[in-house]
Amino acid sequence: MASNAFGTLFRITTWGESHGKAIGVVIDGCPAGLPITDEEINAALSFRQGGRTPYVTPRGEKDLATIYSGVFEGNTTGAPISIIIFNKDADSSKYEPIKDLLRPGHANFTYLEKYGIFDYRGGGRSSARETACRVAAGAIAKKLLSHFGVEIVAYIKAIGGITMPEKSQKSAAHLQKAMRESVVFCPDPESSQKMVNALEKAIEEGDSLGGIIEAAAYHLPIGLGDPIYEKLEANLAKAMLSIPATKGFEIGSGFAAASMKGSEHNDAFVLDSSGNVTTATNFAGGTLGGISTGLPLITRTAFKPTSSIVKAQKTVSVNKKEKDFKLPEGSRHDPCVTIRAVPIVEAMTSLVLADALLVKRISKL
Amino acid sequence: MASNAFGTLFRITTWGESHGKAIGVVIDGCPAGLPITDEEINAALSFRQGGRTPYVTPRGEKDLATIYSGVFEGNTTGAPISIIIFNKDADSSKYEPIKDLLRPGHANFTYLEKYGIFDYRGGGRSSARETACRVAAGAIAKKLLSHFGVEIVAYIKAIGGITMPEKSQKSAAHLQKAMRESVVFCPDPESSQKMVNALEKAIEEGDSLGGIIEAAAYHLPIGLGDPIYEKLEANLAKAMLSIPATKGFEIGSGFAAASMKGSEHNDAFVLDSSGNVTTATNFAGGTLGGISTGLPLITRTAFKPTSSIVKAQKTVSVNKKEKDFKLPEGSRHDPCVTIRAVPIVEAMTSLVLADALLVKRISKL
Amino acid sequence: MASNAFGTLFRITTWGESHGKAIGVVIDGCPAGLPITDEEINAALSFRQGGRTPYVTPRGEKDLATIYSGVFEGNTTGAPISIIIFNKDADSSKYEPIKDLLRPGHANFTYLEKYGIFDYRGGGRSSARETACRVAAGAIAKKLLSHFGVEIVAYIKAIGGITMPEKSQKSAAHLQKAMRESVVFCPDPESSQKMVNALEKAIEEGDSLGGIIEAAAYHLPIGLGDPIYEKLEANLAKAMLSIPATKGFEIGSGFAAASMKGSEHNDAFVLDSSGNVTTATNFAGGTLGGISTGLPLITRTAFKPTSSIVKAQKTVSVNKKEKDFKLPEGSRHDPCVTIRAVPIVEAMTSLVLADALLVKRISKL
Amino acid sequence: MASNAFGTLFRITTWGESHGKAIGVVIDGCPAGLPITDEEINAALSFRQGGRTPYVTPRGEKDLATIYSGVFEGNTTGAPISIIIFNKDADSSKYEPIKDLLRPGHANFTYLEKYGIFDYRGGGRSSARETACRVAAGAIAKKLLSHFGVEIVAYIKAIGGITMPEKSQKSAAHLQKAMRESVVFCPDPESSQKMVNALEKAIEEGDSLGGIIEAAAYHLPIGLGDPIYEKLEANLAKAMLSIPATKGFEIGSGFAAASMKGSEHNDAFVLDSSGNVTTATNFAGGTLGGISTGLPLITRTAFKPTSSIVKAQKTVSVNKKEKDFKLPEGSRHDPCVTIRAVPIVEAMTSLVLADALLVKRISKL
Repeated sequence: MASNAFGTLFRITTWGESHGKAIGVVIDGCPAGLPITDEEINAALSFRQGGRTPYVTPRGEKDLATIYSGVFEGNTTGAPISIIIFNKDADSSKYEPIKDLLRPGHANFTYLEKYGIFDYRGGGRSSARETACRVAAGAIAKKLLSHFGVEIVAYIKAIGGITMPEKSQKSAAHLQKAMRESVVFCPDPESSQKMVNALEKAIEEGDSLGGIIEAAAYHLPIGLGDPIYEKLEANLAKAMLSIPATKGFEIGSGFAAASMKGSEHNDAFVLDSSGNVTTATNFAGGTLGGISTGLPLITRTAFKPTSSIVKAQKTVSVNKKEKDFKLPEGSRHDPCVTIRAVPIVEAMTSLVLADALLVKRISKL
Repeated sequence: MASNAFGTLFRITTWGESHGKAIGVVIDGCPAGLPITDEEINAALSFRQGGRTPYVTPRGEKDLATIYSGVFEGNTTGAPISIIIFNKDADSSKYEPIKDLLRPGHANFTYLEKYGIFDYRGGGRSSARETACRVAAGAIAKKLLSHFGVEIVAYIKAIGGITMPEKSQKSAAHLQKAMRESVVFCPDPESSQKMVNALEKAIEEGDSLGGIIEAAAYHLPIGLGDPIYEKLEANLAKAMLSIPATKGFEIGSGFAAASMKGSEHNDAFVLDSSGNVTTATNFAGGTLGGISTGLPLITRTAFKPTSSIVKAQKTVSVNKKEKDFKLPEGSRHDPCVTIRAVPIVEAMTSLVLADALLVKRISKL
Repeated sequence: MASNAFGTLFRITTWGESHGKAIGVVIDGCPAGLPITDEEINAALSFRQGGRTPYVTPRGEKDLATIYSGVFEGNTTGAPISIIIFNKDADSSKYEPIKDLLRPGHANFTYLEKYGIFDYRGGGRSSARETACRVAAGAIAKKLLSHFGVEIVAYIKAIGGITMPEKSQKSAAHLQKAMRESVVFCPDPESSQKMVNALEKAIEEGDSLGGIIEAAAYHLPIGLGDPIYEKLEANLAKAMLSIPATKGFEIGSGFAAASMKGSEHNDAFVLDSSGNVTTATNFAGGTLGGISTGLPLITRTAFKPTSSIVKAQKTVSVNKKEKDFKLPEGSRHDPCVTIRAVPIVEAMTSLVLADALLVKRISKL
Repeated sequence: MASNAFGTLFRITTWGESHGKAIGVVIDGCPAGLPITDEEINAALSFRQGGRTPYVTPRGEKDLATIYSGVFEGNTTGAPISIIIFNKDADSSKYEPIKDLLRPGHANFTYLEKYGIFDYRGGGRSSARETACRVAAGAIAKKLLSHFGVEIVAYIKAIGGITMPEKSQKSAAHLQKAMRESVVFCPDPESSQKMVNALEKAIEEGDSLGGIIEAAAYHLPIGLGDPIYEKLEANLAKAMLSIPATKGFEIGSGFAAASMKGSEHNDAFVLDSSGNVTTATNFAGGTLGGISTGLPLITRTAFKPTSSIVKAQKTVSVNKKEKDFKLPEGSRHDPCVTIRAVPIVEAMTSLVLADALLVKRISKL
C-alpha cells in the first residue's frame, strides 16, 4: 500500500531508512510563489535535534537538508519540492547482535510478519528518523500558513505524570519564547524544573518516561476543515497517531468532556468588542462540526515512554527461543521521546492546516 | 472537497440531510462473493435506534434500509452497493423559529461561514442522522471481517464521570451479551445502574452528560495496518474523530501511558502455550509500529455531552444580535449521545479493519 | 477496488445495474451556491435518450432523475448531491436463455472470470445504462462551467466511414444548433444524410456501425490541467476510454500529427487584435504541456460498432461448449451506439473541465 | 495540485527539473520480496538514452540511477523505493537569450500563466527529462510483472507517415530482438530503412517528424482492470497522454473500428486447443468491459513532431512583442522524439499493468 504519503492537496511523500544512504521527502501541491530556503528548513531540523537540550540525544552530526527541486530563484514554482538529508552517522554494526531478537515496544515483530523481510539497521523504515522529513516539510507548511497570518506552537504539557497547570490561552509568540527557554520545551518554568528532576531520576534508573504535547494554532481563518470524514480534528487525530510512540489524541476539552454536563460544555456564542461572533469559552478547542471557528485550535497528544531502555528485559527471538534483551553498548536513545516530538507535532499540525487552507478555496462558487 | 467518503479499498460515500427525502451510502470496493441481506443491515440499524433503551430517543418510525445495487442472488458482485433509507418522520416546521440563531455546540455557525448557505432543517447535513449510513455500511464490513474470524464489540466505558472498572480482556461474545443486557450498553451491571441514576438526574435538570466508548477487536490477523501514515491507530483515530461530538481517542494504555515508565509499559514478548509469539501484557492495545500484533485491539473514544439541552442558553443571531436560545417544544434529543454512538463506533472500527484486511493482500510478492 | 468514482475535487460515484431497482450518482465536491434543478438534469437525460432520433432506441419509458440531497432552496450547499433514477422498464426474463453464453464483444466473460459472479440481467453493471448517471452529473458540471463562461458541445464527426468535412472552428452555439437539427447529431447536413443512409442499410442487414465523436470546449480559462500526470488531455483520455465501446482518443491534430513535420505542426504564437497572446493555428487542440491555452479544446473519440447485432454469431458457453448465439427477440439495441454517446462525451468532458477549474484555484499563493 | 504521482497501489511520485541538481522518483506500494538492482534500472535508462542510435541525441554523460531506499540485501522490503539521478551535464547559460520568448509547441506560456513563475533552464519541470524517472520506475514494474509471466514490448510503428505493415502478433521476445536491431526501434527492417531515410531528410531540412509507438503485453492474467472508471484502457490512455508530445491513443482496432461493422469487429469466442476460452480475432486489443481477456494487449500512441526545430520560427515575447525565434546554438534535440519515447511507453504500460495486477487481489472474497 502506498502508505508513505500524507495530505490531499498539500501532499508529502517520505522515504528512507534510518541507516540507509539518505532520507527525504517530496512535497507535491505547494502553491507557486512562496519564498523558501534551505536555511529555514535546517532551522526547523535543528530544533528537532534538541538544540542545547541535554534530554534529546542527537546523532553525532547535525542533519543537513537540501532542497533539490521545486524552488527557482528563491520561490516555489508549483513543481514538487524534493528535500534530501544524507545519512552520515550510521554505525549499523552494533545492531548485528540483536538483529534476531524481537524488541519490546518496537515494530520489528510486526514488520517481519507483514513483509517477511526487515531492514533491522537502526530500526530501518520503522525508525523515528523518518520524522525528520515531516519536520522539513512542516517548515514549508508553516511558512505557507504564516503568509496567511496563522501561528502555530507546540510544547510539553506533561512528562512522567507532572502536568503543567492550565493557563489562559496566550499568544503563540509568548508560548514559543517561554518554551524555547526550557530544556524540556515546557513553557511553565516551575513545571519544567520538576520534569527535569523526574528525567534525571529516570536516566539514573535506566528507565524512560511518557508525556503529553499540547499544540495551539492562532488566527486560523473560519472555515478550515470539511464536514463528515474530513473534519479538521479527524485529520489532526490521524496526523498525531501516525507519529511513532503516540497513544492518544484530544481536542479542546478532550477526555475531560466525558465527565462534563452540556450546560457547562456548550460554548455560548457572544459578540466580541468589534461586534464579531465568537464564543465565551473554548471547550470545543477551535472547531464546530469539524470546521474551524476562528478561535484557538488546541490539541493534546499522548506519548508512551521510550521503548528503548537501559534496564534489562526479557524477550523471544525470531526463531522462537526465550532470550534476555539488552540494548547494544553506546546506543543512542532518549529518556523521553516526547521532548523530541515537540517539533514533529508542530510539523504535523502545520501540514494538516496548510492542506485545509487550500481545500477551503473550493467551498464556494 | 470530496469529504463524504471514507476508506481506501473498502470505501464508503454517504449522502443526505436530516430532513431531506432520504439518506444513503454507496460502498465501493467490497469483494465479490459475500452473502448479505437487507435484514442484516436493518438489524444493525435497529441497535443504533436504541432498541428497548429509554435513553436513546428514536424518531417516531423505524429506519428501513434497502440494498439497491451490488448484490445478486444474495451475494455481493464486486459492483458498488447502494443502500438507501427514506426519511419518513421529519417535521421541519419547528426549526423555523430558531433558524437564524447560532446553536451553541452545533455546526450551523461554521457551515454558514464556510458555504454561505445552510439547510437548517434538523441540522441538515451536519446532523448525526448521517451516522445511520455508517452503521449500514459497517454491517457489511463486519460481515466481511467475521468471514475471516474477526470479532468486534463496542460498549459504554463511562458516562458522566462514572467509569466501569477495568476487567480482564474477555471474549467478544461475553461483552456483546453483557452489553446488550444493559439499557445503557455498559457490560458491567453495577456501573450500568449508576449511569442510569446519573442520566435520570440529568434529564430532570434538562441537562446532558458526556461519556466514553471502548471498542475491542478479537482474532485480528497479524499484519493489518501500514507503516508511517496509514498506521492502524492513525486510521482508527481519524475514523473516531469523524463521528459527531467526539473529543478524543486513545489506543491501549492511551493517555495513561504519559505517566508510565518504559519498564512498566513495554509489553514483553513471550511464547504462548502453542509456542507462538505473543506479549505478556497489552499496553500497546494491539498494534506495534501501526501494524496489528494479533492481540486484542482496544480503543477508547471520548464524547462531549449532548449539545442540545432543555436548559435555556444565551446566543447570538445570524445578523449579530444577542438572543435567548430555547429548544423547540417537542424536539427529540438524547440526554447522552454517547449511548447511541456505540454502534457507530463499532461500525467505524469495522470499516477501518475491513479496509486494512484488503490492503494487507498487497504487502508481499 | 473502488473503481466507480471519477474526479479529484469535483468527484462522482455511480452505482446500479441495468435491471436493478435503480441507478444513481453521488456528486461530492460541487461548490456551494450553484442553482440547479431536476428539470435541468432531466433535459440532459432526455437528449441521451435520443429525443426524436429514430437511430437511438430508448427504453419504453423516459428516465426520470430526482435530486435527493445537496440542494437547498434551489442552490447547492456543498453537501453531496445524490441523484437517483428508478428503473421502470426492465424485463429480465428474455435474458434467461442466453445467460450462460459468452456474448461476443461484451463483458460477461471477463466479469465472470474476475468476480466469479455476474448479474446477467440486461448486462448488469457492465451495461451502458450506467452512463445515464454520467449525463446527470455532467449536467451539473456543465452548469458550473457555464457560470464561468465555458461552453461545451459534442457531435458526430463520423459514422461507418463517412466523415464530416473539416470546417473552421465555429462557436459552440452554432454547432449545438446544427447538431440538434440532425437525427444523427452531426452538424453538417450533407454528411448527416449520408450517415442516415448507411444506418438504414446496416439496420437492414442486421448489422451495426462504428463512429467518431468530436467534442469542443470554448472560452476555457488559461491554466486548466496540471503538469506531468494530471495533464488535461491525460484526464480527458481516461474519461473517454472509460465510456463503453470506445477504442481511441485524440486531441487537436491527433494521429495525423504522426505524419506531420515540426515546422507545420508548431502553432506560432501571435498577438490577437486585442494584443493578447494566442496562436495562429491550433494543431495542439487547446493545451500545451497539459495546460489549457485558452484556445478551443478539440478532442475526438472512436467507438466500435455496437456489439449487439441481429445477425447470427458463433460463441461458447460458460461451461465451454460451442454454441450459436442469437439476440433474444425484441431486444433493444442501437445500430450505432456512437449516436447515443454524444451526450456522454459531452458529460465526461464537462466533468474533467469542472474538476480542473476547481483544481486551478490552488496553483498560486 | 498533487499532480506528480501516478498509480493507485503501485504508485510513483517524480520530482526534479531538467537543469536542477537532480531528478528522482519514489515508488510507494511495491510488494516486499522483489529482487532489484541499480544495474537493472540503469539498463532501462541506457535504452532510453538511445544506445547506439544516432537519432536520439543524448546528453553528454550517461544517466546513472541509484536506489536510495526500500531495498535491503537485494530485495524490496515494502518500504518506499527512492531512486535518484544526479544531473551532471546541464549548461543553462544558452537558455538565457530565449528565456523571455514563448517557445512554439512548448509549455513555458501555459506554465507562466498558471504559476506566475517558470524555471526556464532546459524547460525546467516541463522538460521530457522527467520521463527518465518513469523509465526507472517502469523497470521495477516490469520486473514485478515478469515475476508473474507477463512480457511487455514497445516499438516504433510509424515515423513521418511511413507505417510498418501489420504482421501477425508475434512473441514479445521476437519483437524485442527485432526492434533492438533497428536504429529507430522498428522491428520491420524494410520500414526501418525507409524511416531512416526520412529522418536524414528532416535533419537536413532542420525539421522534425512525428510518429506512432505500438506496445504489446503478452501472457496477461485474465481479470486485470476494473469496471466503469478504472478500465484497463482508460488508465493506459491516461498514462500515454501524460507523456510529453502525445496527441492520441488507441487500443486494438482503435480509430479503424469507427469504419467497421459489428459483424466484422466482434471477436467470436472459441475454444483453443487446450479447451480454454479465447477469441478467434483480437480487434478488442486484449480487454472486454475494461478487463483483460488474456489475449495480447495492443495499444498505439501518436506523437507530434519534435517542437524544437532548427528552422527559424516566429513568436512573441513574455511582454507581448513579436519576435523571431531561433534555437540556441548547440541545443540538443531529437529529429523525432517518438524514438526516444519507446522505453517511456513501455514503462508507462508496465506501471499501469503492475498496479492492475495488485488491485486484482481484492476482487474476490
